[in-house]
Amino acid sequence: MRRPLRTPPRLTLGPGPSPVAAETLRALATPPLGHLDPAFLAVMDETQARLRETFRTTSPATLAVSGTGGAGMEAVLVNLVEAGDRVVVGQAGEFGRRLADQARRLGATVDVVEATPGAQVPLDALRRAAESSPTAAVAVVHAETSTGVLQDLDGLGEVCRRAGALLLVDCVTSLGGVAFAFDASGIDAAFSCSQKCLGAPPGLAPVAFSERALERFRRRRTPPPSRYFDLGLLLDYWGGARTYHHTLSSTLVYALHEGLGLLLDEGLDAAAARHRRVQRFLIDGLADLGLEPFVDAASRLPMVTAVRVPDGVDDAATRAALLSRFGVEIGGGLGALKGRVWRIGHMGHGAREEAMLAVLGALRVVLGR
Amino acid sequence: MRRPLRTPPRLTLGPGPSPVAAETLRALATPPLGHLDPAFLAVMDETQARLRETFRTTSPATLAVSGTGGAGMEAVLVNLVEAGDRVVVGQAGEFGRRLADQARRLGATVDVVEATPGAQVPLDALRRAAESSPTAAVAVVHAETSTGVLQDLDGLGEVCRRAGALLLVDCVTSLGGVAFAFDASGIDAAFSCSQKCLGAPPGLAPVAFSERALERFRRRRTPPPSRYFDLGLLLDYWGGARTYHHTLSSTLVYALHEGLGLLLDEGLDAAAARHRRVQRFLIDGLADLGLEPFVDAASRLPMVTAVRVPDGVDDAATRAALLSRFGVEIGGGLGALKGRVWRIGHMGHGAREEAMLAVLGALRVVLGR
Repeated sequence: MRRPLRTPPRLTLGPGPSPVAAETLRALATPPLGHLDPAFLAVMDETQARLRETFRTTSPATLAVSGTGGAGMEAVLVNLVEAGDRVVVGQAGEFGRRLADQARRLGATVDVVEATPGAQVPLDALRRAAESSPTAAVAVVHAETSTGVLQDLDGLGEVCRRAGALLLVDCVTSLGGVAFAFDASGIDAAFSCSQKCLGAPPGLAPVAFSERALERFRRRRTPPPSRYFDLGLLLDYWGGARTYHHTLSSTLVYALHEGLGLLLDEGLDAAAARHRRVQRFLIDGLADLGLEPFVDAASRLPMVTAVRVPDGVDDAATRAALLSRFGVEIGGGLGALKGRVWRIGHMGHGAREEAMLAVLGALRVVLGR
Repeated sequence: MRRPLRTPPRLTLGPGPSPVAAETLRALATPPLGHLDPAFLAVMDETQARLRETFRTTSPATLAVSGTGGAGMEAVLVNLVEAGDRVVVGQAGEFGRRLADQARRLGATVDVVEATPGAQVPLDALRRAAESSPTAAVAVVHAETSTGVLQDLDGLGEVCRRAGALLLVDCVTSLGGVAFAFDASGIDAAFSCSQKCLGAPPGLAPVAFSERALERFRRRRTPPPSRYFDLGLLLDYWGGARTYHHTLSSTLVYALHEGLGLLLDEGLDAAAARHRRVQRFLIDGLADLGLEPFVDAASRLPMVTAVRVPDGVDDAATRAALLSRFGVEIGGGLGALKGRVWRIGHMGHGAREEAMLAVLGALRVVLGR
């Protein structure tokens, strides 16, 4: 007999995946339905309606891509960017860098507008870049999880419309945890993930496309280089003819359906307020331990708090001790911030004061403060 | 309160997803671990070892892509095929057609070797095509689910080696249900899925790459157009440095770990024999109802039986009645076979005689025979 699955108890308070509620775990164990079963198509319809409510959009082109947030990014770029296009990318950390990398892989000319570390990308600089020469798209990260910075989107939709550019937004970490309004912000395509503020396990990437984006897609000069992410084929399955494109994981859809249900029952505004409240509770507790947030209050993400690693403290050893002694997972820094920050997630079902008590208590013991 | 999840009881005997065992459903409800948690990395290592055993390979480049079988196809093609490459595709149905479509999207010159409907692609024709001019890859579908045909792979590895071409194999439906030997057959890349003969829900695509394939990947002229499927980044995460690439769904890995465990505890040869035995049981029962297999015994898939829709019988109405009256799902025909065949799956946990009794009994009532 092969070794059975054994997993230790964990409180996942890194930058994701976040803890999953009991209701959602139970939904996962529901026997899978076929991807074309009318009973499953009804669950997809409900899930799609919940996604629209969460994105705050009426766009019919709202669905979940079968993959993680990175698959969502690719589904957006691969359908809307073609070789030779100019793309302006706002880069305030690792996830901006990934946007730029993927656009380049598609043969786009990428102009990067960089933020100073720990700050957001200046809207003015994005505007100037978009207006300086013909631009196919402006891509930004709403919640830059690698640094803990929230990007202001105010007025960017209008700038893009005037410049004839599409506005593409990474809301992988932000969706469901902070105000986000696809339609009102004039966003043309956005991608998220199931495992952060939406309260489900990883594996699905919610995406939404505006009518302008669909128009751009229809006018492509070449078919997208990816069949798996081809928007036309995805919409035929999720929307109209229900033509088989891939075997959507009913298991993951069940969990997303449930996670979104819990979120919307609470209310998007209430959930956003809860994320802010829990963060204040965390930051007060961190101050008692002499630990400081890395990002200014004005541009701080409300669902992932980046914390400066104090001088003389070993980053990796501290995180390993939190995990092995108390089962508490927090994240380390990525890229340039490796070893310099910790990232404490309080997202979705993890955005609870009792979860913050656990991480604060564990830090107190491990740091000996 | 939003409507809770409600699903009807179903016996999924279409071309996938197949039924999932109770042990595997329970594994799904395990709380998700972080994608970099050492405890999860250990589960990944075990899952990887089980995948190697199932593929019958010693290749270190064996892993599960985060997506469905179509994502597995894309992960193979996007890393090993470049614009301008010549690719020979054996096409015996819809899934061969998809291979050709994806290779074309990547800018390859595709030469299709077509089979007569319901038959396999002649090995001789593949050999001649591979030898006729410089060929980067030969791609074939081991189990063409759309027609129910098993493709003979005998000697194809050697043909490809002599021609300097990589041998790429779609084993989405075959892996775990019929003899498959990655190393012994000289295969260079293969992709499968979690939800057919491996007994897990959809959402992961096992893939394997040979050393020759890795060598080809390292010598690429351009980076793959996909960051999500980039083999170098995937191997860094699954193999060496454990560098974060995407948030692997621990939920789905738990289920695949369990599904593979059940399969390997039974034994690959025993499981293959069970699939054949259950098919004989089904075909005997179909004969009693006056129903005939579409494919000759010699090239018949042992895990999906294509059955001719009898003259005067309404395909869609029959399948709808099976589903609504008895909760039994079977598949219809795809493409040219739409309305002409039914596809009855007996895969993984669905390859049981009692499941065949249910579909046979339901067909008897619905067809009035």
